[in-house]
Amino acid sequence: MIYEGKAKKLYETNDSKELICEFKDDATAFDGKKKGQIKDKGEINTELTNIFFTMLEEKGIKTHLIDKISEKELLVKKVEIIPVEVVMRNKAAGSLAKRLGLEEGTELSKSILEFYYKSDELGDPMINEYHIFAQDMTSEKELDEISKLAFKINDYLKEYLASKNIDLIDFKLEFGKDSNGNILLADEITPDTCRLWDIKTQKKLDKDRFRRDLGEVEGAYQEILKRLKG
Amino acid sequence: MIYEGKAKKLYETNDSKELICEFKDDATAFDGKKKGQIKDKGEINTELTNIFFTMLEEKGIKTHLIDKISEKELLVKKVEIIPVEVVMRNKAAGSLAKRLGLEEGTELSKSILEFYYKSDELGDPMINEYHIFAQDMTSEKELDEISKLAFKINDYLKEYLASKNIDLIDFKLEFGKDSNGNILLADEITPDTCRLWDIKTQKKLDKDRFRRDLGEVEGAYQEILKRLKG
Repeated sequence: MIYEGKAKKLYETNDSKELICEFKDDATAFDGKKKGQIKDKGEINTELTNIFFTMLEEKGIKTHLIDKISEKELLVKKVEIIPVEVVMRNKAAGSLAKRLGLEEGTELSKSILEFYYKSDELGDPMINEYHIFAQDMTSEKELDEISKLAFKINDYLKEYLASKNIDLIDFKLEFGKDSNGNILLADEITPDTCRLWDIKTQKKLDKDRFRRDLGEVEGAYQEILKRLKG
Repeated sequence: MIYEGKAKKLYETNDSKELICEFKDDATAFDGKKKGQIKDKGEINTELTNIFFTMLEEKGIKTHLIDKISEKELLVKKVEIIPVEVVMRNKAAGSLAKRLGLEEGTELSKSILEFYYKSDELGDPMINEYHIFAQDMTSEKELDEISKLAFKINDYLKEYLASKNIDLIDFKLEFGKDSNGNILLADEITPDTCRLWDIKTQKKLDKDRFRRDLGEVEGAYQEILKRLKG
């Protein structure tokens, strides 16, 4: 094992360019202040990330995914993670609703892209492109590529999820660079990293059920998987 | 009187395109939670804004300033204030030092521009260009113009202040639109809205002396005025 995060572990393989990513049942919120477990989350998120990344690859988005190799494990390309979390929002929720004084669920006239500095110590603060360049987190060219990718991924995911009666409210992406300098979508796409609401009832089907003690936490993750596979 | 803010009052005049801006001695910090008065601040900030805006006008920056008409009053062009506070930073201090985990005084490799939503209710949250466009705070063209103006103003102010042995750490600007749609620098440039340090000793000569109870508050404002006039 070379890394253990809040929701995943990374293992080296015999191939120096490949890693195994294992998804855990552990759930945390509020910078790790709230901790728990969500039954079967590891398996569900492995399969969901596999489904989303495979769909995006088919659309021409390069990702770190190589293959799903077990119930809880993905084989992925080794990348150097860019320390900027990319958040895309279609409706106001969570910190954006608070920041702008909007009611949760308010449709945004244009999708909003946000950057956060990936730092547990600092509590993942929101940053902008000037912070990113002054601190050399990534280059101007790479940030431009990442921003364009984020908007494309939003279009693909939104359309795909809508076809499954799921409303894509917002989501977080992480990108990495492989040894050739290619930018690949990395990390995961799951109810841990997206807000996913039922398209008709607007019922929350994501980690907010855990964060806000809304109950039916496991059921929400299972429901998303069922809709994507059904 | 048509408006009273924390540090200034605005009065209508006989000319519908002009206002009188009166500078108060009142000082507030931490979203108004800390309140006080700084002796002679009204007079000093009137004169400092007059000096800075006149210097910038000579460099070709359009401002709302028409004339200084009394010890505490500027005659200014009436503008519609764009609800985006523009902050420019040359060294880490205050919220930026906290946000990025930098020691106060750390030189930035590139100047950092930040936007804040001018809203007392929401505590002036940091925002980015996508928030600004989604909420129609200003247009893409106008924000681009404002950003370019902010960098120019930074260059002029930094050079001018350095010639007075003052280090320009950071500052806040507000812009407005006149009835013809021209973007004008508005509000004020004073130790209330800038961080100004002695260029050799790095002693703080600005409102942080009030915010952080550092003493010699009035003396700092007087010192800045003395250096600019001397």
